[in-house]
Amino acid sequence: MDWREKLLNITSQNNSLLCVGLDSDSGKLPKFLLGRSKNPLFDFNKGIIDATKDLVCAYKLNMAFYEVAGTKGVEALEKTIQYIPNNIFIILDGKRNDIGNTAQKYAQSLFETLKADAVTINPYLGKDGVSPFLEYKEKCSFILCRTSNPSAGDFQDLMVSSTPVYQIVARKIREWDTNKNCGAVVGATYPEELKTVRSILGDDIPILIPGIGKQGGDVEITVRNGTNSHGEMALINSSREIIFAGDNEGFAEQARKKAEFVRNDINNYR
Amino acid sequence: MDWREKLLNITSQNNSLLCVGLDSDSGKLPKFLLGRSKNPLFDFNKGIIDATKDLVCAYKLNMAFYEVAGTKGVEALEKTIQYIPNNIFIILDGKRNDIGNTAQKYAQSLFETLKADAVTINPYLGKDGVSPFLEYKEKCSFILCRTSNPSAGDFQDLMVSSTPVYQIVARKIREWDTNKNCGAVVGATYPEELKTVRSILGDDIPILIPGIGKQGGDVEITVRNGTNSHGEMALINSSREIIFAGDNEGFAEQARKKAEFVRNDINNYR
Repeated sequence: MDWREKLLNITSQNNSLLCVGLDSDSGKLPKFLLGRSKNPLFDFNKGIIDATKDLVCAYKLNMAFYEVAGTKGVEALEKTIQYIPNNIFIILDGKRNDIGNTAQKYAQSLFETLKADAVTINPYLGKDGVSPFLEYKEKCSFILCRTSNPSAGDFQDLMVSSTPVYQIVARKIREWDTNKNCGAVVGATYPEELKTVRSILGDDIPILIPGIGKQGGDVEITVRNGTNSHGEMALINSSREIIFAGDNEGFAEQARKKAEFVRNDINNYR
Repeated sequence: MDWREKLLNITSQNNSLLCVGLDSDSGKLPKFLLGRSKNPLFDFNKGIIDATKDLVCAYKLNMAFYEVAGTKGVEALEKTIQYIPNNIFIILDGKRNDIGNTAQKYAQSLFETLKADAVTINPYLGKDGVSPFLEYKEKCSFILCRTSNPSAGDFQDLMVSSTPVYQIVARKIREWDTNKNCGAVVGATYPEELKTVRSILGDDIPILIPGIGKQGGDVEITVRNGTNSHGEMALINSSREIIFAGDNEGFAEQARKKAEFVRNDINNYR
């Protein structure tokens, strides 16, 4: 099954555009887990997945939070990927980028070794740094377009003959989409830019949208500006607000409540 | 000891601007190692380090080639870092980038967990994605400016009011250098751009220069355009050409010969 079929199936099955970000910061895990678990990072993720797997279209694993824990963290990353039910879309969020022969190794690492359905990549190196990812035709690569952070505009808003760089990136994404497996990353914190990018990309290219929740992006505008004309092809991510909704033995249940609220909130505007 | 003192000491001690890139592709290791070693990736690196440690100023470990081998690869990465003599500069080349709270985790991972002296980072997210790295004042962060690959110009050459993006990045690097720990990455394959970036950065900011060797950058022009007015602050990287100079039991000796040739070739033009 290719990435698009998998994404559309789970979106429909769970009636959800919600992507839960497993930004599982070891320093923020519920204290009770630390004493009684050999790999608290994995056990935390297991709890979140069990509690939310009928509410999401995707899980996004933020590589930084696993790498920082060394080999133990990579083990938690691998075990989490194995644990996620087969029908749920898995995004490995590492924003990788390099010259061709190295980019190929990252692609192999993420798609083959780790078995992601999709990845995030950074476009600064141009087409030959992106191509090795796009060669995996059954997989999806979300290319950073307009990021959600406050300094996003430092380079992404630079004007090139009256067109900001992030729009030039969006046009390139459409141009590079010959295998029908490109996606874009646009932050919910920039709703007007999101609207513009959706209009450049058309209906078929998915947008991964971080920035609701802790970062403050508005759900209604995000849904209206980010989905395609069928109310699909947007993966709206929330991480900290959901996974750290509680910090005691009821953490998974509290994450479920929050995820259910956000999933339904999104659906109100579809 | 801060990064600058360490770099100047080893540059002087080994009379070298050569950075050897440990792009240790598991698929290209000498066959004889595979049968007789528990961790061929580490044993290969050990051989290269033993044979070249008096010829280099730095080793650069390209994260992709370790990540692709899973936990075994991360173990080889960690063991290699521990094995490199204390006086040699260690660069972890991962081109990481993310929003602030995640970038902080990458910085922690690379500088604290893995104990790098320096890292490479991608500037596309702007200042708040870069700052968490620069807060490590004793460490150096090489920011991608003009990369060595053929498509580098796709975004890096876009013209913003008659100034190409890579020059705007170079100016930002100088502006962001308040802790005196910024560096830049500029490919040897673009010698004119290298000259321009050196003139923007002045004498104190180091440039990591990939692209000689397999990629075809010219050593003489690289040295003339990339070093500062004291013939320093350039780390000229060669990876494949050196580490895969031989593919049999004499691989380390052949890597040494090649490294010695390149080190001396660079010094001819300083």
